[in-house]
Amino acid sequence: MAYHRFEPQVYHTTIGTHEPVLEIESGDRVSTTTVDARGQDSNGDQVTERGNPQTGPFAINGAEPGDTLAVVLEELRPNRSWGWTGTSLAANVLDPEYEASFEDDFEGSAKWMVDAEAGTAQLSKPEASPLCGIALPLAPMVGCFGVAPPRGQAISTSTSSTHGGNMDYRGFVAGVKVYFPVFVPGALFFIGDGHALQGDGEIVGTGIEISFDVTFTVELIKGAGEIGWPRAESDEYIMAVGNARPLDQCVQHATTEMVKWLQSGYGLDARTAHLLLGQSVEYDVGNMYDPAYTMVCKVRKSLLARFK
Amino acid sequence: MAYHRFEPQVYHTTIGTHEPVLEIESGDRVSTTTVDARGQDSNGDQVTERGNPQTGPFAINGAEPGDTLAVVLEELRPNRSWGWTGTSLAANVLDPEYEASFEDDFEGSAKWMVDAEAGTAQLSKPEASPLCGIALPLAPMVGCFGVAPPRGQAISTSTSSTHGGNMDYRGFVAGVKVYFPVFVPGALFFIGDGHALQGDGEIVGTGIEISFDVTFTVELIKGAGEIGWPRAESDEYIMAVGNARPLDQCVQHATTEMVKWLQSGYGLDARTAHLLLGQSVEYDVGNMYDPAYTMVCKVRKSLLARFK
Amino acid sequence: MAYHRFEPQVYHTTIGTHEPVLEIESGDRVSTTTVDARGQDSNGDQVTERGNPQTGPFAINGAEPGDTLAVVLEELRPNRSWGWTGTSLAANVLDPEYEASFEDDFEGSAKWMVDAEAGTAQLSKPEASPLCGIALPLAPMVGCFGVAPPRGQAISTSTSSTHGGNMDYRGFVAGVKVYFPVFVPGALFFIGDGHALQGDGEIVGTGIEISFDVTFTVELIKGAGEIGWPRAESDEYIMAVGNARPLDQCVQHATTEMVKWLQSGYGLDARTAHLLLGQSVEYDVGNMYDPAYTMVCKVRKSLLARFK
Amino acid sequence: MAYHRFEPQVYHTTIGTHEPVLEIESGDRVSTTTVDARGQDSNGDQVTERGNPQTGPFAINGAEPGDTLAVVLEELRPNRSWGWTGTSLAANVLDPEYEASFEDDFEGSAKWMVDAEAGTAQLSKPEASPLCGIALPLAPMVGCFGVAPPRGQAISTSTSSTHGGNMDYRGFVAGVKVYFPVFVPGALFFIGDGHALQGDGEIVGTGIEISFDVTFTVELIKGAGEIGWPRAESDEYIMAVGNARPLDQCVQHATTEMVKWLQSGYGLDARTAHLLLGQSVEYDVGNMYDPAYTMVCKVRKSLLARFK
Repeated sequence: MAYHRFEPQVYHTTIGTHEPVLEIESGDRVSTTTVDARGQDSNGDQVTERGNPQTGPFAINGAEPGDTLAVVLEELRPNRSWGWTGTSLAANVLDPEYEASFEDDFEGSAKWMVDAEAGTAQLSKPEASPLCGIALPLAPMVGCFGVAPPRGQAISTSTSSTHGGNMDYRGFVAGVKVYFPVFVPGALFFIGDGHALQGDGEIVGTGIEISFDVTFTVELIKGAGEIGWPRAESDEYIMAVGNARPLDQCVQHATTEMVKWLQSGYGLDARTAHLLLGQSVEYDVGNMYDPAYTMVCKVRKSLLARFK
Repeated sequence: MAYHRFEPQVYHTTIGTHEPVLEIESGDRVSTTTVDARGQDSNGDQVTERGNPQTGPFAINGAEPGDTLAVVLEELRPNRSWGWTGTSLAANVLDPEYEASFEDDFEGSAKWMVDAEAGTAQLSKPEASPLCGIALPLAPMVGCFGVAPPRGQAISTSTSSTHGGNMDYRGFVAGVKVYFPVFVPGALFFIGDGHALQGDGEIVGTGIEISFDVTFTVELIKGAGEIGWPRAESDEYIMAVGNARPLDQCVQHATTEMVKWLQSGYGLDARTAHLLLGQSVEYDVGNMYDPAYTMVCKVRKSLLARFK
Repeated sequence: MAYHRFEPQVYHTTIGTHEPVLEIESGDRVSTTTVDARGQDSNGDQVTERGNPQTGPFAINGAEPGDTLAVVLEELRPNRSWGWTGTSLAANVLDPEYEASFEDDFEGSAKWMVDAEAGTAQLSKPEASPLCGIALPLAPMVGCFGVAPPRGQAISTSTSSTHGGNMDYRGFVAGVKVYFPVFVPGALFFIGDGHALQGDGEIVGTGIEISFDVTFTVELIKGAGEIGWPRAESDEYIMAVGNARPLDQCVQHATTEMVKWLQSGYGLDARTAHLLLGQSVEYDVGNMYDPAYTMVCKVRKSLLARFK
Repeated sequence: MAYHRFEPQVYHTTIGTHEPVLEIESGDRVSTTTVDARGQDSNGDQVTERGNPQTGPFAINGAEPGDTLAVVLEELRPNRSWGWTGTSLAANVLDPEYEASFEDDFEGSAKWMVDAEAGTAQLSKPEASPLCGIALPLAPMVGCFGVAPPRGQAISTSTSSTHGGNMDYRGFVAGVKVYFPVFVPGALFFIGDGHALQGDGEIVGTGIEISFDVTFTVELIKGAGEIGWPRAESDEYIMAVGNARPLDQCVQHATTEMVKWLQSGYGLDARTAHLLLGQSVEYDVGNMYDPAYTMVCKVRKSLLARFK
């Protein structure tokens, strides 16, 4: 149960079987940093290329394909005073016939002042925007993280699949425990793309993109049976994630994974799992901007108290 | 501002230009009842055919195509002590390859005891279910309601479109004000398909299906400019609804409608509307069982306080 | 086996249980006319409202829900010398980010000269178009036809479903026999929206829209077992149609209907049907412009010669 | 313009920036072999792992990102006397509620005798199948081929994207010239997964899977302007390919790419391109089994004779 403070020297814009930057044991805790989606660090210096560069990979000793890697997100803290966002809604979340009539000719990214103490973000550029002066509450979350995928693939950090990746889900906040299927020896965990705040769907193509101080603990789960998709657990909910297109297919993956979890993890028979989900399931929207979208299927833990 | 107590004698399983059962004025309030999705009333008697039979239509004097009809859902109260639900998840929300292995051979509907006083629902059949004894909190909502569609269409109450219909959205609860585009003279408002409780998506094909006592007030809005899709307002949120398939297209309709609302209703320019939605939008899932699915795009009213 | 020459006086822009314009017997043959999608007849006079107005409905005596109505399209002949088309690709078949940069400021519809003798169509307006002078071969087809849907619905002629409707499939040409499920007494057959020619998908929102002389024969099939979707037969192919969104769902409906047809109509066991389709199925694209899209699943009749 | 006879020693199940097996020049011709989807060679020996193993990559000297690589498929010839196929339709092309009732309990793959001289394939196993004895005409095509993708990705040969990959399109036959965007120095061309025959969509998950003798010629096109998706040309058609999900998105990519091609390659203005496609476009279905589906947008070259 060692504690590692790790300073990244290299970043990756694919999640794949890359050289580990650190080998750790199940139970270990790691504090490190992530750069923003454009490769800018806590000083605003561009230290690597754009495209959700990832810190890592961290190899977990003893992890083998078929195991599950649990990662507790202990701290996700913006470590500078500003972030940036896109300024136009993505065409894919608007009617095909819709055309925006912008009165301005603003180009480039919007800028937001981030006050981690006060826990707020405020738009600062475009300067004349009527939004300037409205303080949005911070809700730091990690946009892109996961483990090396199977078959020797190296998957772009702009998308997501069974290994995790660019899911941009607002529920991936500090305190949440996330489970990934292990596909390669060492699991190879990557993390990056912090958002100080984000609307559902990341529909302007970004949250408030910012560099993070990150602390996480890993736990290797042997022999609990394979999982098919990322899962997560907060104080209130268990969650199953589906990454695909269209959203309907995300729903199919996430719901099927949740049914399996209720059966194998909580001992429910299939009928009970179906009945319970029917009247209590909740769905959240993750990314709706990338090649693969994300939906999350949730069940309140209070409903499961009597099981397991 | 008359008050009408109306006892339905006839029900409809399409929403169309049918003979009005009552003519009312803008500002009027109506108390009536709805039968459950199978046409069973407060006594459990089947008084009409199955398929989300609707009470109405109520004609609003003076309503013309291009107007907007606002309906405040004042009371939505289960008026009997039991409801029923489906027992298996719909195939369309599960992976195509998934096959449930039910240990039981239970057939027919599940039965739930509904205690409106205590505000709970409990499964009572299948009797041996491990769910029996877990009290779920009631959250009464209306599954299917809307106005006569354009072009002389009569649209099945199993689906939804610009006129509303079978949207099965958990947010349509008492206290919410819903706006519909008016397509025909008198608007012709229909309401039915009450649920004591429902999971997101209505993924077993039903909520807890039950008969309701319903009270609503109508308000005719002339000349405010056409709306394209149902909209709604609660204390906390404004909401725009999209009904289509796949979910991605629902998102497109709902988001576009919300952008228009922010611009024409709150005076935001397009850029400000996009920026605001990007970092604060929320999406809820409505029906994912019917021919047309439903997604809802929401914005917190607190963020709009300074506008308009 | 009577022959009827019918002159329409009334048209419908929904397909529903409307008053029959003619009652006919199984085996009867009808010659009539259809107006173009804007309600213009053979003289170019606008005789009814826009929106794929339908001739009919024709009631077939003895038809009952559960029967099948076969309609042989004997003649589909443009009966005037010009048609019109849209001029821009529909936004829904182009990338969301795509924006056309038209050099012209042409508005309104394009006009095409149709020479039924020569069997060609030529663009005549916009006059300066480089396409003027290229003779495209005529391929007359019917865009929208079908029978009254179930449950008292009246479905807009802008869309399609199990009852047929606006399928815009290039394969619906003279010589083809089309099968519809019967949902209401008399079946109630409608026909309209002739195209002198059309690209796959009707992706500018129109084919070459034109009025038609139409001759068809009806055959009522009792007790052959219910069909779920429109089917068709040409000299070369049997075809099953799926109407929905997205295209993936059309494929699901059409393929499932074809499997059922191979089993119940040709006596194949399920394995043989799957194996045969796997290496010989063909798919065609119908409408990709309307609320519901269309895909057609085809099998060559030569492959089925030894069965039945 | 050298001619290379190449014997593969190594195969890849991702398409990525792997070590070239041969460096060739623009204009060179290569004869080689491919193994079947399970890694079986012309002798039926399993020489590498399953999963559409690719021969290559072949590096084209001088190829740089932004160039286009043309590959003429000169010969695609099954080099053994049998192939295999799946035996059940994929769940994703059937209605979610559909369940096959197989009378047999056949497991494993079906086997087909392939007679390259006679140009036919016949089912030989399951032995009792009514299909045995029906000779299907061979139509050899390549299922999976393409070039190294951008951003250091290594993309599984079970899927497809802008770089090509597992497109399973029946139109990729001998005589066709295919164009790929070049993303990495040397382009890195891979080829594999030959099918003696295949139905549209590869809806049993396979064509008739077989090893091939392959001959192709490469041509490097410098400075013609970037292409966004694979394109192809036969004697009759020009074709643009879209790979994504759902099919609707494939259509969007393929149609947009075709519009661009007509404009930049044939000098059509946008209006003319739209008008031409509207009345003459054809769409073919490629793979409908993989994570990404494939649609092809085609235009007859005869219609383009007067342009360019």
